[in-house]
Amino acid sequence: MADSDASRVLLSVSGFSPRRWHELLSAGREVVMDADGSADPSVAYAVVWKHPHGALRNLPNLRGIFSIGAGVDHIMADPDLPDVPVVRVVDPNLTQHMVEYVVWRVLDHHRQGALYRAQQGRKVWHEVGQRTAGDVSVGIMGLGQLGRAAAEALNGLGFTVNGWSRTPREVANVHTYSGESGLVPFLNATDILTVLLPLTPTTQGIIDYALLKELRRRNALGGAVLINAGRGQLQRDADILRALDDNTLKEASLDVFEQEPLPADSPLWLHPRLIITPHAAATSDPNHLVGPMLEGMEQLDRGEMPENVVDRSAGY
Amino acid sequence: MADSDASRVLLSVSGFSPRRWHELLSAGREVVMDADGSADPSVAYAVVWKHPHGALRNLPNLRGIFSIGAGVDHIMADPDLPDVPVVRVVDPNLTQHMVEYVVWRVLDHHRQGALYRAQQGRKVWHEVGQRTAGDVSVGIMGLGQLGRAAAEALNGLGFTVNGWSRTPREVANVHTYSGESGLVPFLNATDILTVLLPLTPTTQGIIDYALLKELRRRNALGGAVLINAGRGQLQRDADILRALDDNTLKEASLDVFEQEPLPADSPLWLHPRLIITPHAAATSDPNHLVGPMLEGMEQLDRGEMPENVVDRSAGY
Repeated sequence: MADSDASRVLLSVSGFSPRRWHELLSAGREVVMDADGSADPSVAYAVVWKHPHGALRNLPNLRGIFSIGAGVDHIMADPDLPDVPVVRVVDPNLTQHMVEYVVWRVLDHHRQGALYRAQQGRKVWHEVGQRTAGDVSVGIMGLGQLGRAAAEALNGLGFTVNGWSRTPREVANVHTYSGESGLVPFLNATDILTVLLPLTPTTQGIIDYALLKELRRRNALGGAVLINAGRGQLQRDADILRALDDNTLKEASLDVFEQEPLPADSPLWLHPRLIITPHAAATSDPNHLVGPMLEGMEQLDRGEMPENVVDRSAGY
Repeated sequence: MADSDASRVLLSVSGFSPRRWHELLSAGREVVMDADGSADPSVAYAVVWKHPHGALRNLPNLRGIFSIGAGVDHIMADPDLPDVPVVRVVDPNLTQHMVEYVVWRVLDHHRQGALYRAQQGRKVWHEVGQRTAGDVSVGIMGLGQLGRAAAEALNGLGFTVNGWSRTPREVANVHTYSGESGLVPFLNATDILTVLLPLTPTTQGIIDYALLKELRRRNALGGAVLINAGRGQLQRDADILRALDDNTLKEASLDVFEQEPLPADSPLWLHPRLIITPHAAATSDPNHLVGPMLEGMEQLDRGEMPENVVDRSAGY
């Protein structure tokens, strides 16, 4: 079969039902669901979330891989990944969800939600001191689409915002730092650390005890706060627990974990100063994402390059 | 003593220590603390929070009354209130605190904080459906300084915002309604009702069961939500409880109550779908407020009228 005749989409996901994705993709393309690595010259594109490694290696006419989800670490981890463009999701709906989550968690720590909820449980009427947002700095690790949108929203609410990225970036109203040399100064100026990094070999496990130790603790909140809405593999669960227990961290909000679902025997579940959400910060919604994916496939058919193609050397 | 010689400030507060207010006011004026209604021709200004009724009637040279706190209902309730300008607090710091509180509570309901906290307590890893802010409407009752600032912040986060006020007001990006005839249409279009009204004879008890019944319940949140950060006397505590219990309200956040502190035997304390804060949304901070008060006194000394003088016919 000639290259140009291949047009089918291989849909390979694990961890959730692909029914709606199948339905919507089928409106534009014929969809196949096998992902066992068997040869299929009819497949032109793959739409994947945690596909089985090797599942894409035997598709001679593959022209592009589309990620379900903002992160592409689940794709890059495949040692048999074919050398075709990998397209990342950038969608206003997903960005909106992530911004809501980050602002919600920042405000809940800033406004001492855990303390007031505990007081309510004991019927205690007691107002505590409250700084304004301008006296509190939120530091965002990762200044991609999501990090920049979160920074803008937090700025709009009056927070002082710092940002850190691997390579230098300018973001309006954000004190930016970059690279290894910028990391400690960034942390030293940050009260609430918000992690929105891509997961790559370089960032794996970056949120460890030594890093948390560098956060500013002489601050209005009575301690440093961690929010991770990126990937669980960015963090060391045990280090976060240690940091909470010795008050290196005052509180944390985690949407992601080294192992998901978080095992029932994890001591994180019932830590009184930790808020857990089940990887729910920003879910990929097929109603919003399938349209742009089908458009991206048409672009690749025409020999054009879609926006948001992953830089494979950087891994994101 | 001639009118122009009077210059002292009567400081009369109840419910908290006036120490810091006294200290800061004293930097600009001589301060007296008696507030028993005895005659004092040396007093030119009063700075008050819930002063004893009648305490201001015997001050022949009083030229202005300054309210501690955004609401002036505590002043207007005095039947022996002298006929001098009453100056309301309008302060960016207080506005900022209120905006933070409102956005915090709106996001906590929108992002299903209570549900995820309950799930965490049972070690349940389960993601629930999540609409974006644009699919949810927040209705703000009261479009003064605080209401308009909250509307702008919620707009910035993507929420659809409705507003209701006694007299017609135009606010950018807000669907505004006004007067008695506009109230039901406003409520019918509102998922999350946020109350920032002044307390006047007209608004007393306005948040009752019949009003809550008009809120939109065919919505993405699985029920209507009430947030009151105005005054407790605007609401009927018992009606809110009834509305929560029969699911007219899905959830509520209350910072204010008919009686404060909320009595220990109130059934509101331990309601699982109610978040209580102890009148802590936006506290008047003397460090920010005394300066503008002293300036206002100088303006009145010169025969000028400060900004934010209360319209006594409207009561706010």
